[in-house]
Amino acid sequence: MSERFSIKGVVPPVVVPMTEDGEIDVPAYEKHLNRMIDAGIDGLFFLGSSGEVAFSTDERRRQIIELGMRINAGRLPVIAGCIDMQTNRVIEHAKAMEQLGVDAIVATAPFYAIPGPTTVANHFRAIKEAVDLPLFAYDIPVCVNTKLGWQELAELGAEGTLDGVKDSSGDDVSFRFLVLENERRGHPLTLLTGHEVVVDGAYLAGADGSVPGLANIDPVSYVEMWNAFQRGDWASVKAIQDRLANLMLITQVTRGAAGYGAGVGAFKTALWVMGVFNTNQMPAPVDRLTDENVEAIRRVLMDAGLV
Amino acid sequence: MSERFSIKGVVPPVVVPMTEDGEIDVPAYEKHLNRMIDAGIDGLFFLGSSGEVAFSTDERRRQIIELGMRINAGRLPVIAGCIDMQTNRVIEHAKAMEQLGVDAIVATAPFYAIPGPTTVANHFRAIKEAVDLPLFAYDIPVCVNTKLGWQELAELGAEGTLDGVKDSSGDDVSFRFLVLENERRGHPLTLLTGHEVVVDGAYLAGADGSVPGLANIDPVSYVEMWNAFQRGDWASVKAIQDRLANLMLITQVTRGAAGYGAGVGAFKTALWVMGVFNTNQMPAPVDRLTDENVEAIRRVLMDAGLV
Amino acid sequence: MSERFSIKGVVPPVVVPMTEDGEIDVPAYEKHLNRMIDAGIDGLFFLGSSGEVAFSTDERRRQIIELGMRINAGRLPVIAGCIDMQTNRVIEHAKAMEQLGVDAIVATAPFYAIPGPTTVANHFRAIKEAVDLPLFAYDIPVCVNTKLGWQELAELGAEGTLDGVKDSSGDDVSFRFLVLENERRGHPLTLLTGHEVVVDGAYLAGADGSVPGLANIDPVSYVEMWNAFQRGDWASVKAIQDRLANLMLITQVTRGAAGYGAGVGAFKTALWVMGVFNTNQMPAPVDRLTDENVEAIRRVLMDAGLV
Amino acid sequence: MSERFSIKGVVPPVVVPMTEDGEIDVPAYEKHLNRMIDAGIDGLFFLGSSGEVAFSTDERRRQIIELGMRINAGRLPVIAGCIDMQTNRVIEHAKAMEQLGVDAIVATAPFYAIPGPTTVANHFRAIKEAVDLPLFAYDIPVCVNTKLGWQELAELGAEGTLDGVKDSSGDDVSFRFLVLENERRGHPLTLLTGHEVVVDGAYLAGADGSVPGLANIDPVSYVEMWNAFQRGDWASVKAIQDRLANLMLITQVTRGAAGYGAGVGAFKTALWVMGVFNTNQMPAPVDRLTDENVEAIRRVLMDAGLV
Repeated sequence: MSERFSIKGVVPPVVVPMTEDGEIDVPAYEKHLNRMIDAGIDGLFFLGSSGEVAFSTDERRRQIIELGMRINAGRLPVIAGCIDMQTNRVIEHAKAMEQLGVDAIVATAPFYAIPGPTTVANHFRAIKEAVDLPLFAYDIPVCVNTKLGWQELAELGAEGTLDGVKDSSGDDVSFRFLVLENERRGHPLTLLTGHEVVVDGAYLAGADGSVPGLANIDPVSYVEMWNAFQRGDWASVKAIQDRLANLMLITQVTRGAAGYGAGVGAFKTALWVMGVFNTNQMPAPVDRLTDENVEAIRRVLMDAGLV
Repeated sequence: MSERFSIKGVVPPVVVPMTEDGEIDVPAYEKHLNRMIDAGIDGLFFLGSSGEVAFSTDERRRQIIELGMRINAGRLPVIAGCIDMQTNRVIEHAKAMEQLGVDAIVATAPFYAIPGPTTVANHFRAIKEAVDLPLFAYDIPVCVNTKLGWQELAELGAEGTLDGVKDSSGDDVSFRFLVLENERRGHPLTLLTGHEVVVDGAYLAGADGSVPGLANIDPVSYVEMWNAFQRGDWASVKAIQDRLANLMLITQVTRGAAGYGAGVGAFKTALWVMGVFNTNQMPAPVDRLTDENVEAIRRVLMDAGLV
Repeated sequence: MSERFSIKGVVPPVVVPMTEDGEIDVPAYEKHLNRMIDAGIDGLFFLGSSGEVAFSTDERRRQIIELGMRINAGRLPVIAGCIDMQTNRVIEHAKAMEQLGVDAIVATAPFYAIPGPTTVANHFRAIKEAVDLPLFAYDIPVCVNTKLGWQELAELGAEGTLDGVKDSSGDDVSFRFLVLENERRGHPLTLLTGHEVVVDGAYLAGADGSVPGLANIDPVSYVEMWNAFQRGDWASVKAIQDRLANLMLITQVTRGAAGYGAGVGAFKTALWVMGVFNTNQMPAPVDRLTDENVEAIRRVLMDAGLV
Repeated sequence: MSERFSIKGVVPPVVVPMTEDGEIDVPAYEKHLNRMIDAGIDGLFFLGSSGEVAFSTDERRRQIIELGMRINAGRLPVIAGCIDMQTNRVIEHAKAMEQLGVDAIVATAPFYAIPGPTTVANHFRAIKEAVDLPLFAYDIPVCVNTKLGWQELAELGAEGTLDGVKDSSGDDVSFRFLVLENERRGHPLTLLTGHEVVVDGAYLAGADGSVPGLANIDPVSYVEMWNAFQRGDWASVKAIQDRLANLMLITQVTRGAAGYGAGVGAFKTALWVMGVFNTNQMPAPVDRLTDENVEAIRRVLMDAGLV
């Protein structure tokens, strides 16, 4: 079994820039990753929900990781999403990621076919057995329809199947119970929140770090918030989180878009407006944001002082 | 664009037999397909939700189709599911299926990443553009979280993007509106119901055929029901459907299982008890049914005169 | 315990006409009920979901029943909804209805506070014990979040707690299982479908009758469909149902409305356009349909030959 | 229009003790309210979801308020839930509460009949117009199926319709956006969180107070947490919240119960085990917790030092 892997701090789920014709925009990717690394983040999470994973062929997944790791050049630990419907395909992705040399992998509960009561634990155990890498559970019921139970997660941590949890469940009560149970068991799990608007509350609750999509836009502030938390300066933590929550309005001010197109679409548009990306092109079949939606996002960025 | 493809009658979604160690059980597969073809079914739908698609690697998908087509030997039209999260991967599957020579393909709405208002139509159009094969939309919100609208489906049919719909939505009101709208537009879509317990009502509503998972267990009765429908003998249609609904209790009598493990698990167990399959092995990470659950299924089969 | 109550045929859930200032419009109510009774319907279901029950004070509920029964003048059996959050209030309504002399009452599963595993059966038993009237269970998960299980309903029927079920669940599979189980137990329950667009399929499945909201608009056709069913003329059953499904498009052609305002709003608007109601006023806080929505409904009615 | 009402701090939603035969247990009620008031709470919220509101007749609602206000004897402000399906009944409750002299009222979005886009705002405006009392919106989608939007709430606050929000939505992202928007508009709304396990995060986010069901069990700790928050002692806030989250396990350790019976059932059982209540009797049709479930709750209370 792999050694216990641990990570702390800010680990952005990397949004991937595309060219107009749908290829990875390598110069923009380089600029984007360097900008975040220079801001002082603590790790990189590739192929998460905001990282095109659902839209990517196996070859595209490989490209995203290979290019990302080449740019990163060992500066930060790399975590890679192995998101697919059921165990066998997840294991294929995990083996590919292992060969590419990532530091840890992330898998969701199985989806599409509805899991029964013992299926979820079977799933994580089979992945762990197949691949000798630290394994994070990705709790994202909005995408996979299953909420991972805090007792089950803690148990899978204690037995050595899971090394951490990336919580994007929006269920802060369950997260609190998980934190406390994980403490009682000696902290086997690294607990990261994906909840970018209430990271302050998650830190107060005991999270080990955050995976905020919005850190693609403003990595400096998330690093500052982490540092303020480390020195116990809660007034600053709160003030920075408020600022970031206002910046998150980029995902709330658009009209006529929904789901991935509104969420990641706003991130890509902001990075384009800010000059980090060369376009806000989205993966097919998702339409990019246009016209007044771009302007609405620009206004939020101006209010935030980012353009 | 492909010629307008049409199919009528009973098209079972094929359940795939496995060996104890998780390989395709070729002799059982042969026995199973021949048994259904001999019963007089009208087509074969491989890689549907009950056909292991979510649990299969690309290689396993290829095996299921290749072996299935070799056994079928051109006797019946073959429809293949191209189920994956988003458009790019669906197109990869579709191209693989095209090379294998299937007669039509089936795709769901995109899932995992949540689609916005125009995403679904974009998705089907991109698949159709990429692959010159008849394309069915698979409406299965319980797995993909999106209900396909009847107006949108009819429109995609009229424009030539879709050739048919496999309806597993459980929304008979929407299905009725779809049937009527499809008639108004000159019947561009072949409409198949996946609702094995109320196929009689779907035929009455105007379905062109059915894709009943339960036809794996009792193909003869579904063929008889179709024939009775063809000759307008509604008393027989209803009587046969009642008998089949009672047989469907195999999915209701188990305890402690849920989702795929209870549904397809019951199908595999019944086929094993009946001697068609050599085991009721399930794809990992799903547990097979055991002990009193097997006995409960056996009792339903005995009541139905199938063992 | 009350004698076993039974009803067959078409039992419309009565839509109640209001005046502009929100009172019951008595002349329109009279015209409306007489029009349906003259069409040959078999019973009247007051205070259902389309019958203003959720918007009515106890006093208004009393008025709806008193006026309705005065107009009915004993011509047809009267069933009254006793819809409220939990058992105690349902029993208050039930006792009021008993005093008003209705023939049977209808109650949903408890809602707002989430019921546990034994709560639903407790609930129906407590109502039956409190009031000596035939009791129907109203299965409407879209409003109350609980789907009544077919095994539980059949059990409550066999023990004498329930006399019938009004199924508005949209789950035709469960309804089929219920019909078959009810037969096995000697038909203790009268089973009515609320699914106005697929009543034909419900009759084929074995429903004892229907509670179609759309029968407020076109009672004659629902009566004709029932009669065709009685004589086994399935071609006519289907043709009439198709015609009625096209009429049901009044609920699909509006824009900007949703929920009750779109559904019952369309019924009231149609009755107003047809001259049965004097206005399409809705109970506060629901806005009535206006302008192009009224015109869209008028066009559907013209296509149906009803204006 | 009523003057702007404001409240800060800890406002428990009062759990009501019953006798074995289902009446209000007046001595226990007195002991319970005095215990909380003596602990230093800041207000009393009667007839919330944990306060039997859904199970209460109008007469029982009146008793709960009358007795509660007699015991309170003006020591603390009193807020009363006016929970019912739609506007007209809510207004009846509101008028009854006005006559009883409560200080503010609380209403949810309309439920059972599904609201359309403008219905919710119409609803709150109609209540405010009918009754001259401060009005809180109760955001509890798990019971009423509608999530109140933060923009709409802030707008209703700014126009004077709403005086506050009790947030039991579990959606901390939306709550954060609401807090910030409310600040931008000059803080028209008093914002209370009902999320007893993460009150610390809500205080950090900017909540004006909390409505924690668990404060019925341990009011002292919630008061201490509020005081620690007031003096900026976040280490203590977090430590107290952790302690309280562990106490909240009384709702997680039972088996076989669900919904209201597991949640409020655990609160009543704890108060009974602690000697504040004389029984853990529940309102019909909900079963009380028994045997090993009582013991499991007792163990949590012992770990917490409360028995």
